Amino acid sequence: MELADSLLSGSRRALARGITLVETGGTPARKLLSAIYARTGNAHIIGATGAPGAGKSTLVNALALHWRRAGKTVGIIAVDPTSPFTGGAILGDRIRMQPLSGDPGVFVRSMASRGRLGGIARATGDAIDLLDAAGFEIVIVETVGAGQGEVEIASAVHTTIVIEAPGMGDDVQAIKAGILEIADIFVVNKADREGADTTIRQLRSMLTLGSARHHDWTPPILRAVAMREEGIGEIAAAVERHRAYLHGGAQLAEHERARIAREFQLIVQEAALERARAEVGAEAWEALVQRIARREIDPYTAADEVLARAT
Amino acid sequence: MELADSLLSGSRRALARGITLVETGGTPARKLLSAIYARTGNAHIIGATGAPGAGKSTLVNALALHWRRAGKTVGIIAVDPTSPFTGGAILGDRIRMQPLSGDPGVFVRSMASRGRLGGIARATGDAIDLLDAAGFEIVIVETVGAGQGEVEIASAVHTTIVIEAPGMGDDVQAIKAGILEIADIFVVNKADREGADTTIRQLRSMLTLGSARHHDWTPPILRAVAMREEGIGEIAAAVERHRAYLHGGAQLAEHERARIAREFQLIVQEAALERARAEVGAEAWEALVQRIARREIDPYTAADEVLARAT
Repeated sequence: MELADSLLSGSRRALARGITLVETGGTPARKLLSAIYARTGNAHIIGATGAPGAGKSTLVNALALHWRRAGKTVGIIAVDPTSPFTGGAILGDRIRMQPLSGDPGVFVRSMASRGRLGGIARATGDAIDLLDAAGFEIVIVETVGAGQGEVEIASAVHTTIVIEAPGMGDDVQAIKAGILEIADIFVVNKADREGADTTIRQLRSMLTLGSARHHDWTPPILRAVAMREEGIGEIAAAVERHRAYLHGGAQLAEHERARIAREFQLIVQEAALERARAEVGAEAWEALVQRIARREIDPYTAADEVLARAT
Repeated sequence: MELADSLLSGSRRALARGITLVETGGTPARKLLSAIYARTGNAHIIGATGAPGAGKSTLVNALALHWRRAGKTVGIIAVDPTSPFTGGAILGDRIRMQPLSGDPGVFVRSMASRGRLGGIARATGDAIDLLDAAGFEIVIVETVGAGQGEVEIASAVHTTIVIEAPGMGDDVQAIKAGILEIADIFVVNKADREGADTTIRQLRSMLTLGSARHHDWTPPILRAVAMREEGIGEIAAAVERHRAYLHGGAQLAEHERARIAREFQLIVQEAALERARAEVGAEAWEALVQRIARREIDPYTAADEVLARAT
């Protein structure tokens, strides 16, 4: 497959086209992903998430710069949860990565799902595979918000960095409790601001309360001022320690198995739906939807009929 | 089906059990939903979303009280995006609905997905159907955050209320741009706080910029102080106007068709995966996952093989 070959031999244009393909999904995307899959599994995949206003983009940029200076290639995927409606240009519109522009060792892309079934989480998982196969040693997935999407994306990365900032409003607590369990590293960004110590203290006490999931790894709580590139080396070192931790025991294998089992289920679902729709035909499918809307048939019985027909 | 009969005849215990069932998914959930589906389609379904700290729960409680005083029955689903890991007790743990406790015309439930494939959005859609079939005239779905999950849930409701509060941090803008397009009604809560006028002005100018989706409906921007039950009647009136608008033209039918088409796809996907897994068997499925993890086969080819076998 020509596109796959170009992508594997390092063409940025092919990579960009490939990502557009996986945003849309469908057969062309599946063919590409099938062709490059054997070359995946080498990148260290990092998730960067946290509430709006925590300074995620600045921190991710600073980390990318740090790793570039150390000679590592870095791919960045900025996931925009608002994208199903807007076309997802919000993060892309930001002027970002200035010191890195023109550097062939960095690839930045903001992702939209373009109405793909399975949504942005599926498209992101596929884009990670493309960057991995294209040879990027570090892949960072940056997500805005703290909803279900972020938790889903967390299951597709190796190391999750949760970024906080001092004084972010009163029921951030509720979100933290969930985010807590996906975090491998906490960063309190904008640590020169008032309230940083309080935020660190709160994180520490929450960590003490709910440490069930982390086994032998205690998530460090680090300070940073990403705007001034302060604390970035410490974060990079913590990522390296976490990576070594994963590789040290059975953790990485188990993590990979869980990630792949989940991805595989989603891929089977997507392919099954496509088959069923093709089998039934667009018109008959629409007629069925109309019958469900009129409550003449329930969608569960209708699904059984459709799948029986596809058999 | 006994559980379905109890639920349809108004048993709260049956409703609670039904929701637990749809959180888990699978055949028992599908059977229940299939049995009650003909009785759905009567409730007006409202989504209430917005950034953390906007006071969503308080506002939803006040609205529920308002409608109870008007003699309407109200079901509330509080969706917790953090739930896949925590079991979802965060929202439920809050002391809420005090003036309504013991009132049989109100049902409040916080939702978790309990690891269900398709996640919280699928479980929420099903829970809406259960409350609808149980006879609740108004169903409110309250979501925390502003991620993909919220946008997905918005497609399952009739009227989406987006709740803002003054002074919520600096890149709320980015989120608003996506939320804007799902909002039918804006509420600036905590409107007695400094900055309320600025927030209203910002919303107004964003609405002017991006009004593509709303056709003949202009989302009103309303003020409220939910803690003191101020502005609640106006919100309820706006919901009524939006409902009348939907029923007035082809909007409701089209909205329902789109909602059902989407739900149906998800139901087919879920059922197809279950069939495929049952066909392949747990051991062979796991062996396949292991082969994918070793990169001996790519998951797309593996999915084709699995679906060919299920045929």
